[in-house]
Amino acid sequence: MTLASPRRIRIELAYDGTDFHGWQVQAGLITIQGVLENIVSAIEGEHVHVAGSGRTDAGVHALAQVAAFSIRNPIPADNLQKAMNRLLPPDIRVMRAAEVDPEFHPRFDATAKTYEYRIFRGEIVPPFEKRYVYHHPFPLQDEAMIAVAPVLEGEHDFTCFSATDHSAKPRSKVRRIYSSKMQRTGDHLVYCIRGSGFLKHMVRHVVGLLREVGKGNLTQADIEARLRPGCGIRPGESAPPSGLFLIGVEY
Amino acid sequence: MTLASPRRIRIELAYDGTDFHGWQVQAGLITIQGVLENIVSAIEGEHVHVAGSGRTDAGVHALAQVAAFSIRNPIPADNLQKAMNRLLPPDIRVMRAAEVDPEFHPRFDATAKTYEYRIFRGEIVPPFEKRYVYHHPFPLQDEAMIAVAPVLEGEHDFTCFSATDHSAKPRSKVRRIYSSKMQRTGDHLVYCIRGSGFLKHMVRHVVGLLREVGKGNLTQADIEARLRPGCGIRPGESAPPSGLFLIGVEY
Repeated sequence: MTLASPRRIRIELAYDGTDFHGWQVQAGLITIQGVLENIVSAIEGEHVHVAGSGRTDAGVHALAQVAAFSIRNPIPADNLQKAMNRLLPPDIRVMRAAEVDPEFHPRFDATAKTYEYRIFRGEIVPPFEKRYVYHHPFPLQDEAMIAVAPVLEGEHDFTCFSATDHSAKPRSKVRRIYSSKMQRTGDHLVYCIRGSGFLKHMVRHVVGLLREVGKGNLTQADIEARLRPGCGIRPGESAPPSGLFLIGVEY
Repeated sequence: MTLASPRRIRIELAYDGTDFHGWQVQAGLITIQGVLENIVSAIEGEHVHVAGSGRTDAGVHALAQVAAFSIRNPIPADNLQKAMNRLLPPDIRVMRAAEVDPEFHPRFDATAKTYEYRIFRGEIVPPFEKRYVYHHPFPLQDEAMIAVAPVLEGEHDFTCFSATDHSAKPRSKVRRIYSSKMQRTGDHLVYCIRGSGFLKHMVRHVVGLLREVGKGNLTQADIEARLRPGCGIRPGESAPPSGLFLIGVEY
């Protein structure tokens, strides 16, 4: 018996990350990647690795995370999508599925990503939003945050905006940010950032530092200082995961 | 020692009804009224009855349910609201609290109520909406539902649009509907009804019958027949609670 050649399937996922320990498989913990691998492996009849465009932290949400895997099962992509949605918890939905080039890799082929971060400024969070915002009802100088946000645009070394790197080999921390905008709409302060790529915890650290600008603890000059190579300043407290959404990945 | 005279407190509540067994206190079950009475009674130091504008079924949500209770505790309404929100689960929020006339009754004084019902027509429910819609991805003639919805407007006997009444005394089933509108917006079919009052399960039965119109099983004449006094036709299957929101109560 000859095996069919493997087919590469690209999926787009929406998920509510509240009840998951992030994207990446971890022994004994429920993760997005782990749940997906269990289901695709069950369909395929053997272990299948599901690659994502990048990790999302515990509690972080996605409107259109991109992932891919290779299977020999000849099931059409549409039916595979339906089968996966039947097996997945309602907190994770496959919004699209398509057969793509066997070489497609969601992480290495990505050219840009967009994240949105939602801060709720009102006194009381409506129950329907509690999983999807960071509640900060205390005084903030919104105008200062809005003014400083675009400072991040351009190519910079983002070491001072990311978690400590424990990897053996030092890797480049230079990323290009195409846009970095903060907007006020009603009770929400919404931050949107699009860039070539992001370091670990980077968006949450950026929002944490912009929050310090809003509190009057940091100025535009302090943010600019952190963008200079070798600045060595620790980023401080990151903003919580609940407000963060991966909005989309470009290829 | 003379006791302070009781003060009447009116509160407006938003709640996600998904994890509650409806409004009304039931032994051994977690209900909105039960949770509120526990908290207000703890603040007052003795049992306090919390009256609502009406019951909501298990799984039904509210943007602005109105409730009231009487306490002797002199705590200002603002502080009481904060204390309640600290003690309540995040699924229930007191959005406003105010001291009102001692005679105020949220049910007997109400002059109108508005409900909204959300049907999700797309193939896949985004995870962020799953608790707040009725998913009906199957064919429906939206235009027929939109055309028939206003037929309910006016003063009618709604016996054929409500749950069977097991009460000892027969009560009037006549209600006045001020507006009854269905709208399509993107993937949502949204029904909004405002009326002088509503019978048990009435909105869910109205939506269930409009759904039958959409499926081609009932016509406008069939709905009109059900509005005639003494029609005696059973309402059929009601629409599920997840899509229903009590939007507001007027006084």
